[in-house]
Order: sequence, then structure tokens, then C-alpha cells
Amino acid sequence: MDRADGLLKDGERLDDLERNGYRLIQNPSYFCFGMDAILLSGFAAVSDGAALLDLCTGNGIIPILMAAKSKASRIEGLELIEENADMARRSVTLNGLGERVHITTGDVKDAVGIYGASSFDVVTANPPYMIAGHGLKNPDGIKAYARHEIALTLKELIEHATRLLKPGGSAFFVHRPFRLTELLGTMHDTGLEPKRMRLVYPFSYSEPTMVLVSGVRGGKPYLTVEKPLIIYAAQDVYTDEIREIYGF
Amino acid sequence: MDRADGLLKDGERLDDLERNGYRLIQNPSYFCFGMDAILLSGFAAVSDGAALLDLCTGNGIIPILMAAKSKASRIEGLELIEENADMARRSVTLNGLGERVHITTGDVKDAVGIYGASSFDVVTANPPYMIAGHGLKNPDGIKAYARHEIALTLKELIEHATRLLKPGGSAFFVHRPFRLTELLGTMHDTGLEPKRMRLVYPFSYSEPTMVLVSGVRGGKPYLTVEKPLIIYAAQDVYTDEIREIYGF
Repeated sequence: MDRADGLLKDGERLDDLERNGYRLIQNPSYFCFGMDAILLSGFAAVSDGAALLDLCTGNGIIPILMAAKSKASRIEGLELIEENADMARRSVTLNGLGERVHITTGDVKDAVGIYGASSFDVVTANPPYMIAGHGLKNPDGIKAYARHEIALTLKELIEHATRLLKPGGSAFFVHRPFRLTELLGTMHDTGLEPKRMRLVYPFSYSEPTMVLVSGVRGGKPYLTVEKPLIIYAAQDVYTDEIREIYGF
Repeated sequence: MDRADGLLKDGERLDDLERNGYRLIQNPSYFCFGMDAILLSGFAAVSDGAALLDLCTGNGIIPILMAAKSKASRIEGLELIEENADMARRSVTLNGLGERVHITTGDVKDAVGIYGASSFDVVTANPPYMIAGHGLKNPDGIKAYARHEIALTLKELIEHATRLLKPGGSAFFVHRPFRLTELLGTMHDTGLEPKRMRLVYPFSYSEPTMVLVSGVRGGKPYLTVEKPLIIYAAQDVYTDEIREIYGF
């Protein structure tokens, strides 16, 4: 009998993460993880034994991928919406990760109260990309919370992430290039100095669709912009690097 | 008899710009223009009849290229060092551009006094890239002024460029990616909102060596990051786009 029996609810599906045999419970009517989460998990550098917190964790894709890809000893995921947090907890159980990975239902604005200030080596986040109110049709849906800054602005996210990091600790974010000015500027102003940046281009001849950025709490200003991350070598053919990140 | 006779001084050389038959007088012991200036002239969008000011104009490469590539009706170049400004003026004469292009010797900090505030549609600059004091061995040489922020910081450059632009006018800069946070953040804070950005990668698999950024005075925040500008298709072989920008 599959371990997933009894863990899946109506409308949910089970996806193979291509890492350690791990699987993830998702509900397509809420929000399914995208390439963003996969690329962020490939971009984040995590030392052995590190304590990691993933903010806006959704269905727990990043904590579970980081459990597979790193030797972090403690991985926390914080999610505002109980339906998502519940799915994430069942995926943690399904993969036998209960000792390393913990999912908490709560607001990023309360995170310092929940975990304590300066308590993580690494913070990750794949936050909502869209500014609240811009083109938003259904502000009550769970999908809307995943896509629009209804509960949390980018500035708030960066400020709370910084307070949660130990001095010298690193944050890793994925976001949309159209907000790069705000992303880098707010990080700098908050004392989370941008240190690495990588643009994700679908093809070598197209505009980038994502940007990956790391920042160090209290770091000195010097940004290394890395080589382009190109997704497709040809139509429907992933580049070798993307295949490697995906674990194919 | 070549028009250049009598215009060239000892130690100077004459380079073909591959545009309209224009040539440029350079002194290799000062500073010769690089790909930076060429790419900036390709990136800058200039409307017909525009008034354009190039700050830190050096030997005048950008005013002369913009005279060739645009229908700007008035092109000003401001240069701190008289030896450079003198070379630039002789290149303007050599190319018969004296009616459209004027070179002034002066400090960017005095530019509003020289030209008047809010008087240009476009400002361009290929400023010194290196922070003053960082690795600087010979602060008195003309080359040092071209490479290090001895006379002008990036923040000062952006502030003066903004004051010189009409509301809605555009600035175009080329800089090094390691200072991208400061570049975008200072532009935003100064009211010169970053609108377009393009990274220049030597190869599709290498870190970028330059960044091109445009900003609009009083523009709304929304940055379009453009497709990568890749210099080499193979070792010593320019990409088609670079060949086009160079005018080959």
C-alpha cells in the first residue's frame, strides 16, 4: 500500500520531485509550484548543519527540496493559509521528513515572535510577485494570495527576513525582473546587501522572466551578476543546466 | 590633403568610427574609447530634434557617434580635462559637425550653471567605474580620472543628470554590474526611475561585464530587463547584433 494512501484529500494530486524519491501533495485549485521554486532551490547556497526558514512556503515545495538538496539540520516553513500549511505538513509526513522539516501556520509579520530574531543562517522566499490591486480580480481566493501582495509587501518581506537572519546570514529570493529596482534597493536600505544575482532567460534571445537574488545581512556592497540562466536550448528542449537543477 | 592634417598633435592617432565616414582623434596615453561607448550609443534612444548632453565625454566619442546615429538637433559634450576636451573639439571640426556638436570644458557639478536646469531631452554618460581610492595607484594621471571617481561620485553624476533633464526626459548610462544595486537604487531615490536595463555578456555562458540602464525623470517604477546582449558568438567572432551596433 502506498504511503500516500490516507494522506491525500479530494482534489489533490501527488507529484514526483525527482529528488530522493520525494513527492509533493498539491491542489491545482490553489496553486501549484512552478519553475520559480525549483530554480530558487538550485540557487540557494546552504551550509551543512544550517538552520533555514522558508517564508511564504505555500505547499512546502521549497522546504522539501532543500531537505533533499542540502544538509541543513533544521528547515522551517511558514505559511499564512491553513489549507496550504496542512498540505505541506502531509507532504513532510509522506516523505518521512518530520525530524528536519517543520511547517507552521502563521503570518510573516509574526515570524520574529514565532522563531526569535537572528535565529536563522538562511532565509528563502518565493513571494507573491504582483503589487496588490494591480489587475487583481478575486482578492479572496487562495490563488490570489499566492500571486498578489495582499497580506505582505515586498518591503515587509525583506525587513522581516533580515530580522530573522543571524548577522552574516543569507537570504535567497526569486522575483520578477520588473521589480528589480525595488528588490535591490530595499535590500540595500534594510541592511540585507545584495551579493549575487542571476537572470533567468527562457531563450538566449528573450527577455528574462525571473531574477534570483541573494543578500547577506550586514554584507559590504559588491554585487556579482552571474552568467545567464537559460531555460531552453531549443523549443521544448531544456538546457543541460536546467535538467541538472530539475534532477533529470 | 587630408582634413586631419594640422589637427593631429604629437602622440595622437586617428580612428575610423565606421559611421558616416567619421573619425576620432585619440591619445593612447590618456584613454581610448572602448566597447562601452559603442554599446551605450546603440542603447540610447534619441528622438528627432532632441537636445542631448553627454557628461564625462572624454575624447567626444559619444557625441560624435550620436551625431551619426541620431537626428538630435543639439549635442553637447561636457569634459573636465582640457586635454580631452581639446581633442574632442578637433574631432568635431574634423568631421564637420561644428553646427550640431559643442564641447565644453567644465565640471559636471557646474553643468546646471552652464546649461540651465531641465534643458535636455536626453543625458548620456559613460562615467568612471571604480570607487575612488579602490586600487588607485596614480591619482594624478588623466587615465585615473577616466577610470576612478576622483572628481565625481556615481550619486553626484545621477543627481546632476536628473536636474539637467526635462521632466520625462531620459538618461542612458553604461556601468559595471558590481555596482548595479547602487546604480538602480540611487536613480530611483533621485527621481530618475530605471526603465530599461540590459546586461552585456561576453559569451552566453559568462558573467556580464557591463550593464546598460535607462531612466526617466519622474517615471513610474517598472523596469524592463531586455534580452541579453552577447558579444561573441565564438572566440574572436562577434555576434550579428554587435556587428550591427559597430556598423560593420
